[in-house]
Amino acid sequence: MKTRLARFKTFPALSSHSGLRVAFYDSKLPQLVPGFSKWLRAFDFAVELPAGESLKSTRELERVVGQLFSSGHSFSRDGTQFFAIGGGSVGDFVGFLASTFLRGVELLQVPTTWLSAMDSAHGGKTALNVAGTKNVLGTFYPASEVWLIEPFFKHQSGARVNEALGEAAKMALLDTRVARAAQSLHASESEWTLAELWKLLPSIIEAKMRVVNRDPFEKRGDRRVLNLGHTLGHVLESRFKIPHGLAVGYGLHFALWVSWCEGVLPAKKFFELERSLSRDWGLDIEAPRKLKLSREDARRLLLRDKKVLSAGSLQFIAIRGVGRPVQLPLKVDLLLDALEEFWT
Amino acid sequence: MKTRLARFKTFPALSSHSGLRVAFYDSKLPQLVPGFSKWLRAFDFAVELPAGESLKSTRELERVVGQLFSSGHSFSRDGTQFFAIGGGSVGDFVGFLASTFLRGVELLQVPTTWLSAMDSAHGGKTALNVAGTKNVLGTFYPASEVWLIEPFFKHQSGARVNEALGEAAKMALLDTRVARAAQSLHASESEWTLAELWKLLPSIIEAKMRVVNRDPFEKRGDRRVLNLGHTLGHVLESRFKIPHGLAVGYGLHFALWVSWCEGVLPAKKFFELERSLSRDWGLDIEAPRKLKLSREDARRLLLRDKKVLSAGSLQFIAIRGVGRPVQLPLKVDLLLDALEEFWT
Repeated sequence: MKTRLARFKTFPALSSHSGLRVAFYDSKLPQLVPGFSKWLRAFDFAVELPAGESLKSTRELERVVGQLFSSGHSFSRDGTQFFAIGGGSVGDFVGFLASTFLRGVELLQVPTTWLSAMDSAHGGKTALNVAGTKNVLGTFYPASEVWLIEPFFKHQSGARVNEALGEAAKMALLDTRVARAAQSLHASESEWTLAELWKLLPSIIEAKMRVVNRDPFEKRGDRRVLNLGHTLGHVLESRFKIPHGLAVGYGLHFALWVSWCEGVLPAKKFFELERSLSRDWGLDIEAPRKLKLSREDARRLLLRDKKVLSAGSLQFIAIRGVGRPVQLPLKVDLLLDALEEFWT
Repeated sequence: MKTRLARFKTFPALSSHSGLRVAFYDSKLPQLVPGFSKWLRAFDFAVELPAGESLKSTRELERVVGQLFSSGHSFSRDGTQFFAIGGGSVGDFVGFLASTFLRGVELLQVPTTWLSAMDSAHGGKTALNVAGTKNVLGTFYPASEVWLIEPFFKHQSGARVNEALGEAAKMALLDTRVARAAQSLHASESEWTLAELWKLLPSIIEAKMRVVNRDPFEKRGDRRVLNLGHTLGHVLESRFKIPHGLAVGYGLHFALWVSWCEGVLPAKKFFELERSLSRDWGLDIEAPRKLKLSREDARRLLLRDKKVLSAGSLQFIAIRGVGRPVQLPLKVDLLLDALEEFWT
C-alpha cells in the first residue's frame, strides 16, 4: 500500500468521510499548540493518551479499547479511521492498535515532533513493550496518509530540534540527495532554524521511503541500513536515558570510527564526515566521549541488539562514504575494542 | 503466502531446521494423548497454555512473552518457528503472538480438535479478547504449514465429534464437493465415526480455502459466506454457553428457515436440506427450539454481530441451494419476527 504524504500550513479541514474518525492524541498538545483543541472537535471521537514509552503497554491497550467501546459508537473495519496525533510513542501505540483492531482499520499518522515527522511516522513499523522488553510486539502497517501540519512544529522547543538532528544527519550520510538539500538550505556552523528543518523534511522522508520500499517487511535486509548509528545509540539511550535523537547522533560518530578502523572508510573521508557532523549538524564529537560505560555493561547491552547474528557477533552498519552504507558482521569483542579506543 | 497442508499417521519427526522451534500447547494434551509428551521433547522450548477463551488475553500475552525471554534462548524474526498445538483458542492466541512477536515469526498450526482442524487453523485469522470484547484485536496471518496429526483425533470424545458436525454441515451446504464427499463416505441416519470424519477433513479444508483465497483479508465480502449459521449461532453461544459447533448447527436450521421465508430457497429444497441436517449430520431440529430467549435479549445480541450494516440491519447469509450462498441485508426486526415463527 502506498502512503500519501500531505503538508499543511494550518490545521486542515477533514474531508467528508462517511465513516467514523477517531483522534488519538498526546495529552500535552492542547496546552502546547494554539488551535489544536478547536481542530480536535472536528473528529467524531477523541482519545487522550499519556505519551511516552510507558504508553506502549498492554495495560493502555485494555484501557483504550474499553474507552472506544464505552463511547457508544459502533466500529467497522471499513468505516473507521484512526488518527495517531503525537510523537513516536503515540505513533507506535496507535499504529499497533489500528493494525489489530477488528483485524485492521485505516491508520493516518499525524506526527507532531521532528523525530516522528522524519522517521517513525513513515515506513509502517508499530510497536508495543511487553514483559519489560521494548518493541517486542509489533506489526508492519503503513499509514494510508501521513499529515505534516506546520503549527505542530512551530511550537517545538530548541531542545527537541537538536534531538532530531541526529536522525537528520544519519539520512544525510545515507543519501546524497539529503546531503545536497542540507547544504543548499543551511549555512555550516549555524544553528538549524525551524524554517530550514521544515524545508529539509520532505527530502529526508523521501530518502527513508526509498529504503523502506526496497524492503517493506525487513525481509531482505536492505532496511537495516537505517540503523546507521543505532548500535551504540541504543546502548547509550538505555544506559544514560538520553533522548533517542541525541543517542543516534553520538552513535553516528562511532559508526564513522568503526568504518575507518575496519578499512571501509578512507582516512580523508573519515575526517571530512566527522567534521561535517559537528559543523553542519551540531553533533558534538566531545559529548559522546563523556558517556562511558564499563566493557561488561557495554557487552550486555550490545548483545540485546536486534541485529545480533549469533552469540558474539552482530550486523554493524558502516559507511564507505556518503550514500554508500555497508553491512559488516562484526564480533562484539572487536566492537568493544573499538569503543575503548574511541573513548581514549 | 500459500499454506502447506500435511497429514501424518503418527507424530512426525521435526525436519532439520537451524532455527529455534517453540511449541505452545494445550496443557490437557500430555494427559490425553499417548506419545505427545515424548514428541514435545523434540522442540527447543515448550510453553504450556491453559486452553479456553480466557487464554486469549493481554495478561497471558505478558506472561508468555516473559516466559520466552526468561528461557535464555535468543529469538530472531527469521530463525524462529512457533507451533500452535491445540484447539481454536490456542490457535487464535499463538497465531496473534506469532504475527506480532518481533513483527512476525513463522507460524505452524497443529490443530488438535475437529473444529480447529476443519475451520480455525485455516485462513489466517488470529484473535485476542480485550476489555471484555471477544476477538476485538487480531491479525490475518496464515500459517506456513498446517499439520493434521492423526493421534490427536483418535483421542477425542464423541461429544467433541458432535460439536464439529455443525461446521462440517455448514461446509456441505456451502460447497457441492463437500456434500458429495460426505454422501459417499457416510450412510444417512448413522453416527459419524472418527475414521469417516478423518477422511472427510481434506474436502472441508479445501472448500474453506477456496473461499478464503478469493478474499484473504475479508475485503471484498466473499469470505462472509463462511458465516452461514453464525448469526443465530453466536447469539445462542453467548447466551446459553453452548459449544460453538453445536450453536452453528442450530444456526444452520435458522438460516434455512430465513432463506425460505425470504423466498430465496424453494419449499421443496428447504424441506430436503432441513431433513439432511438431521439425517446426515445428526443436527436435531427440535433442540434449537428449546433454546429460547426474549425478543429484547435477541435484539441486543444480534446487534453485537460484526456484520451489522447500520443501526437496525445486518448482513445475513442465506442459501438458494447447496453451493449457492447469498448475502441478504435484513432488518433486525424482520430477523426477530422470523425467530419467533421459527420457535413456534
